[in-house]
Order: sequence, then C-alpha cells, then structure tokens
Amino acid sequence: MLTIRALDELRKQVATPHGAGRTVAFVPTMGFLHEGHLALVRRARRLGAFTVVSIFVNPSQFGPGEDLERYPRDLDRDSALLSELGVDVLFLPATQDVYPVGCSTWVVVEGITEGLCGATRSVHFRGVATVVVKLLNMVQPDVAYFGRKDFQQLRVVEMAVRDLNMPVKIRGCATVRDTDGIALSSRNEFLSGKERSRARAIPETLAEAARRYVGGERRAGTILEGLGAKLGAAADAVDYFGLFDAGTLAPIEDEEQVSDEPLVALALHIGRTRLIDNIQLGVDEPPDV
Amino acid sequence: MLTIRALDELRKQVATPHGAGRTVAFVPTMGFLHEGHLALVRRARRLGAFTVVSIFVNPSQFGPGEDLERYPRDLDRDSALLSELGVDVLFLPATQDVYPVGCSTWVVVEGITEGLCGATRSVHFRGVATVVVKLLNMVQPDVAYFGRKDFQQLRVVEMAVRDLNMPVKIRGCATVRDTDGIALSSRNEFLSGKERSRARAIPETLAEAARRYVGGERRAGTILEGLGAKLGAAADAVDYFGLFDAGTLAPIEDEEQVSDEPLVALALHIGRTRLIDNIQLGVDEPPDV
Repeated sequence: MLTIRALDELRKQVATPHGAGRTVAFVPTMGFLHEGHLALVRRARRLGAFTVVSIFVNPSQFGPGEDLERYPRDLDRDSALLSELGVDVLFLPATQDVYPVGCSTWVVVEGITEGLCGATRSVHFRGVATVVVKLLNMVQPDVAYFGRKDFQQLRVVEMAVRDLNMPVKIRGCATVRDTDGIALSSRNEFLSGKERSRARAIPETLAEAARRYVGGERRAGTILEGLGAKLGAAADAVDYFGLFDAGTLAPIEDEEQVSDEPLVALALHIGRTRLIDNIQLGVDEPPDV
Repeated sequence: MLTIRALDELRKQVATPHGAGRTVAFVPTMGFLHEGHLALVRRARRLGAFTVVSIFVNPSQFGPGEDLERYPRDLDRDSALLSELGVDVLFLPATQDVYPVGCSTWVVVEGITEGLCGATRSVHFRGVATVVVKLLNMVQPDVAYFGRKDFQQLRVVEMAVRDLNMPVKIRGCATVRDTDGIALSSRNEFLSGKERSRARAIPETLAEAARRYVGGERRAGTILEGLGAKLGAAADAVDYFGLFDAGTLAPIEDEEQVSDEPLVALALHIGRTRLIDNIQLGVDEPPDV
C-alpha cells in the first residue's frame, strides 16, 4: 500500500490503472476506521478494483462548537487495517491542499439538506458536498462507496454527483452494527459504559418500527407509536426522530400512510456525543435486538 | 463535425481521443458566434486537439428581467462556421438534461463574484460557475478556452476549477475587437447604428487609460480622470467603471498607486443593451482607436 499526501503523486499513481482500463474505486473517510468503513473497502476489493482510501477530517463540515478538535484519530492503526485489506493507495491530503489560501468555492445542495441533520447542522452538508466533490476530482474514481448509516449524506452526495454530471458511480453500503445492535461509528468511542447502555434504545426503536412495518402496519403514527418517548427517555436530547420519504427526505406526517419503503431516521445526544441512525423499512436489515 | 445532443453519445465520442492520449479541448459558448468565439476555437485547433464546442443558452445565469428570451440565436450559421474550422463535436445539450427535474446543486464562488457585474447581477455567477462545472464534467476536456472580454467570468471559472480540484486547464484568450474598437459580443446585435456610435466611447476610454499607464502614470485617479464622465455622457446608465486588482478584482481607490498590471473594467447600458469591456493594463493590447 502506498501512502500518498501530495495530489500530483496521487494523480500519477491513479493514471496507471486508469490507462490500463482497470476500475478505480474510492472510499473517502475521516479515519478512526471501524468495520463499517472496512466493509466499504472490502466491497471495492471484491470488485478487483484499484482501491484508494482517503483519510481527511474535513473542518468545513463541522459547525462552531461541534467536535472537530476531539474527533478521534489513529493513523497507525487505520493504516495497518487498510494495508491488510489490500488497499492500493492511502491518500492523506493536507488541510492546506484541500482548502488553499483564498479557496472560496462551495458546492451547495438545496432541498434535501434542509431537514434531518441539516436543521441543526447548518453548514454541515455544504462542507460534505464540497469536500466530496473535491476528493472525487482529486482521485477520479469510477465508483465511490459511502455508508448508509449517514443516509442523508449519501443522498446529498448522490444528488451533487448527478446534478454536476460527475463521471462517477456512487454506491451506498449497509450499516454495520455491533452485537448490541448499535451502528458502528467513530464517535461511539466517546460513550461511557453507561451511555452505551442507554444508546441501545436506538437499535431497539428501529427494530420495533421494522417489526410493525413487516407486520403490515402502514400508518406512520402507529409505526412510531411510543418510540419517540422511549428514545426521549434514553437520550439527553433528541434532534429529530421520524419517518421520511427515502428519496426526497420529506417528513411523513403521523396520519399519513407510508409507501415506497420509507426511512426511519433519528439524531440524538447522549452525554457529549451526538449519534445518528436510520433504517429504510423494507430495504435494510433491521438491528437484531 | 458531429452534432450531438445526448450526453451518453458525447461521452462515447470523447472517450476515443482520450483513450488514444489525444488532447481534448473545449470551448463552451452560448452561440450566435462571432470572431471572439472563433479565435478560441482556432486556438484549440492549432493545438491539434480533439475540439468540442458547446452551444447552450444557460437560463440560470440570467436574472429576472434580463435578456434570456431575446438572447440572439442562429444555429445554422454557428454550425457552418464551426464545421469550417474543423471542430470535431458540436454539443447541443437540452435544457432538461442540464437541469433535470429536481436538480438542486449550485456551485457558489464567494468573494470575486461580489463586485463588478456581481453587484447588479446577483444570480449570474452562481449560474455561470454551475453550468461550467456541469459542462466540464460532461465533456471532460484537458483544456478549456474562455474569452478575456468576460474577465470576471474567467476568474470565477479559474477559481471554481482550482478550488474543486478539477483536472482541466483553463485558458483565457484576448478580446477580439471590431474595426471601430468595440469588443465583439453577441449582444452588439441589439445596438442600433446610433447606439453603436455612442458605444465607441468604450474602446476610446480603455485606450486612453492604457496610453496614460504606458506613459508612466500610476495614480489610479489620474489614469481614469475624466473618463467616467465621458462614458456617462455616452451611456444611458453606467453599472461600474474603475480600476481593479486583476487577481482579486478588489477595487483600487483614486488616491492609490496601481501596481501589478491592474484591470480597467466597465459595464454600461446603451438603450436596451448592457455592454461590458475591460483591458488589463500592461497585458492586453489596447483598442486601436
């Protein structure tokens, strides 16, 4: 595995498989890798693709007062894990190369960025869309993988890539969960043992909504009945919890009938940690709790 | 010359020269071509590049009340001119392919878009940056040519491409002027004979500023002395006229000494027509009037 920090070196290394007609796959990450990230990498490797993984903790997707400074990092461990999986290039761009002095261009996706996490994290998706477009232009992959745990992010990236006619396929991959059902996340690192126990309300809630949906329930309010209270009791604050159209991310009201495999999604705070999770009913495997 | 309207057909046609290592050059236009456009095309052809020219009157760069509907069009003539010059592909994207239903992504360049034309055309450069990024991603050229007559547009495109790490070189080409010194523009079509005579104040003003600069004058106010009044007398309204830093487009105040080859730039209205022009002092050939 080559570890590359300079953009011109990256372009040189990617030119060879490209010229030979080999698929180039890309997994952008913020590091502190867990099995969720590694599942994306394995999917690229199974394709036989020349695989590039980036680690870049993108400052522009953190708002003021968010956890940029304390975002967990462990480059040595990440590097060993990726090397073991047969990754071809680990790309570690420097912040000053991604955001050079005078850099003043933003990729702004309207509409689907306004609800869910966008309601409380106003600059987040502008930062995500911008850095993903930059990284895709740096790596120039044929295909890029993103986790469905960050479902709104996946939709934002899909939309930016479609709208800007970027020549790359975006693939969303299933959320990977721990044995207690909690979705893997670098931020789980911040949870104390007690907080972790409280967080189990999240997969339990999603699993219960899935049971009701699979059992034939289609009224939104009934699918979620009592579950918001359960989450509220477990969390210190709930940013949002609800049913959403999986395409537009528009909220589905309690009295509506759901159709078209809707998304149950939530964001909440336990202690100092903000956690998100979701499942698309009828599509995603529910948490096994 | 192939005339292509569908994106997948365009990608197929461009893949062949790309695969063979041949340079792909791109000239995006809004059509109603004049010698200014053709100079860009000739430059691409001199390079021996596989040359793609697009014609697309981009609705998103016109504000409400601007001249989108009456923007001049003559596809048959344009097509004949380009074919004669040896253009390989004329790309005519449909509006619904460039802006599909639900399209909601914008490329926003801050800072340099705020002054000059950005002050009165608030959505203009958002539309320009967005459509150029889309078109560059569609065509995937190695190099793209833009006229220096639209100097602020050139800077916006350069910045978007740099900031988003797009793998394409942007080249600005000299403004082409008519025998009366007036810069070629598709919008000159709108001028009556009398209006055209009044418009000669524009190249005369730029030429006079250049004479003073070449003569050694460096005080901004003195370089422009009396010229604003001359323009004001010829025009029905002046949007802006002044000296600007050619890199940042920051205005240079009257009492400042200019350095670093500044830009003299203006926008004004004659009758129903808005005209822009500029020269970079010490760089561009001044109008021969």
